[in-house]
Amino acid sequence: MSSAMRYLSKSMNTNILVSLKNGIFIRGILRSYDNHLNLILDNAEEIFTTPEGENVQNRIGKRVLIRGDNVIAISTPKIGEIE
Amino acid sequence: MSSAMRYLSKSMNTNILVSLKNGIFIRGILRSYDNHLNLILDNAEEIFTTPEGENVQNRIGKRVLIRGDNVIAISTPKIGEIE
Amino acid sequence: MSSAMRYLSKSMNTNILVSLKNGIFIRGILRSYDNHLNLILDNAEEIFTTPEGENVQNRIGKRVLIRGDNVIAISTPKIGEIE
Amino acid sequence: MSSAMRYLSKSMNTNILVSLKNGIFIRGILRSYDNHLNLILDNAEEIFTTPEGENVQNRIGKRVLIRGDNVIAISTPKIGEIE
Amino acid sequence: MSSAMRYLSKSMNTNILVSLKNGIFIRGILRSYDNHLNLILDNAEEIFTTPEGENVQNRIGKRVLIRGDNVIAISTPKIGEIE
Amino acid sequence: MSSAMRYLSKSMNTNILVSLKNGIFIRGILRSYDNHLNLILDNAEEIFTTPEGENVQNRIGKRVLIRGDNVIAISTPKIGEIE
Amino acid sequence: MSSAMRYLSKSMNTNILVSLKNGIFIRGILRSYDNHLNLILDNAEEIFTTPEGENVQNRIGKRVLIRGDNVIAISTPKIGEIE
Repeated sequence: MSSAMRYLSKSMNTNILVSLKNGIFIRGILRSYDNHLNLILDNAEEIFTTPEGENVQNRIGKRVLIRGDNVIAISTPKIGEIE
Repeated sequence: MSSAMRYLSKSMNTNILVSLKNGIFIRGILRSYDNHLNLILDNAEEIFTTPEGENVQNRIGKRVLIRGDNVIAISTPKIGEIE
Repeated sequence: MSSAMRYLSKSMNTNILVSLKNGIFIRGILRSYDNHLNLILDNAEEIFTTPEGENVQNRIGKRVLIRGDNVIAISTPKIGEIE
Repeated sequence: MSSAMRYLSKSMNTNILVSLKNGIFIRGILRSYDNHLNLILDNAEEIFTTPEGENVQNRIGKRVLIRGDNVIAISTPKIGEIE
Repeated sequence: MSSAMRYLSKSMNTNILVSLKNGIFIRGILRSYDNHLNLILDNAEEIFTTPEGENVQNRIGKRVLIRGDNVIAISTPKIGEIE
Repeated sequence: MSSAMRYLSKSMNTNILVSLKNGIFIRGILRSYDNHLNLILDNAEEIFTTPEGENVQNRIGKRVLIRGDNVIAISTPKIGEIE
Repeated sequence: MSSAMRYLSKSMNTNILVSLKNGIFIRGILRSYDNHLNLILDNAEEIFTTPEGENVQNRIGKRVLIRGDNVIAISTPKIGEIE
């Protein structure tokens, strides 16, 4: 199992923050993923900064599918060590 | 079946919101999809914000084919849990 | 046959509107396609909005070949249901 | 033979207009092509609009090779029907 | 083993600086990698310059996964010679 | 042999002008190429226009390797007909 | 061996200048490479021009890995002829 897959496996059902190539962040609970880095998040909200410098958080539906090729990085507040 | 395919299978004949790389959203009823994330939507409308900050919704024909490589994310108002 | 191919098969010899990644739309009668989404349109015209907000329609030759990787979406005014 | 290849085969030794992803058009006589949509044109000239709105046509050498992945669309003034 | 993999193998558990295509740098301790250049960093912080010219460093969670296709370059303060 | 390869074969040891996706042109004597359109040029100089409209030519070393995926087009002042 | 690989083989342990797609140049001593054009440079420094027109050179660590898909061109001050 590759580094990315092991990381996502350990992050299942936890809150993750996904940074996308269009400059937007999406936060939600990771429910599913595959080896393209396609992600399914629950209770997702998008987070971005307006041109006026205001931070905005929008709920974006109960469940969201993110196409993996848009992902720059994924961070998790706390997960265990990688074996 | 991958995460993305299972998600789309559960969303068939429901209203979905598709976020595209060009900054536009398309909303419509999902009628068909394939493993490139090509999507066919009925009663589709595009949703975008003008440079003046006005929100616009345009009907874009009875049926639309979206090429999968343009998709950033797909959200659904309500679907069941993924098994 | 994939969703995209079935959609295009049903749209043969009808008027379609193609949205391209460079922001331009091309409208014409679909005469041929292949599995890269390369499209051949007859009586094609390009449709775009100038920086001054003016809508422009230009005839672009009797027959045009569009390279599939430029396509965002294709819409059709009216086609039958997908089987 | 795919739609694109058949189109190019019928356009051999005729004048074509190629629209490129960088916003420039190239017009010339099609002398050769391959299945990547690499094109070889004779008597080619580039056509573009300056920021000041002026249309410019420049001769760009006796023979030019265009790398296929830059092509948006190709149009021909007049060719026969596709069989 | 390719040049890139040998470089990353020697950098394991050391502090690296990753330059990304979106103009941001991420610094952290390399914990894992794979042959797509997907990277897992601990104690990661992002480093960027605001439009006003101010340098900013933000902690971005205990552990971050960077998708390899975003990487421009990786530098290390000190590592041994490549065999 | 594909169209592109035949074109480059005929251009060996002649002066070519390469248009790149970043808006810069490179002129030099073609010494080698491969089927990715990677090019090796001798006595190369880059040619570009500054934002102030000034044309600039810079020598860029005795020998330069251009990665093929950056190439838009290649033109040659004079070569024979393609067989 | 392809043109690019032969060029890099001849440039080993010499000073090269790498032009990247983000507009930055990196100069350093080539220590390793692979067939993706991933490069490892020692004593690397980045060279760029600020928006104010000032040329800047920054040391970027003892050893740097450049992901090959960012490379536009590589030049060398002096190397022998290609056989």
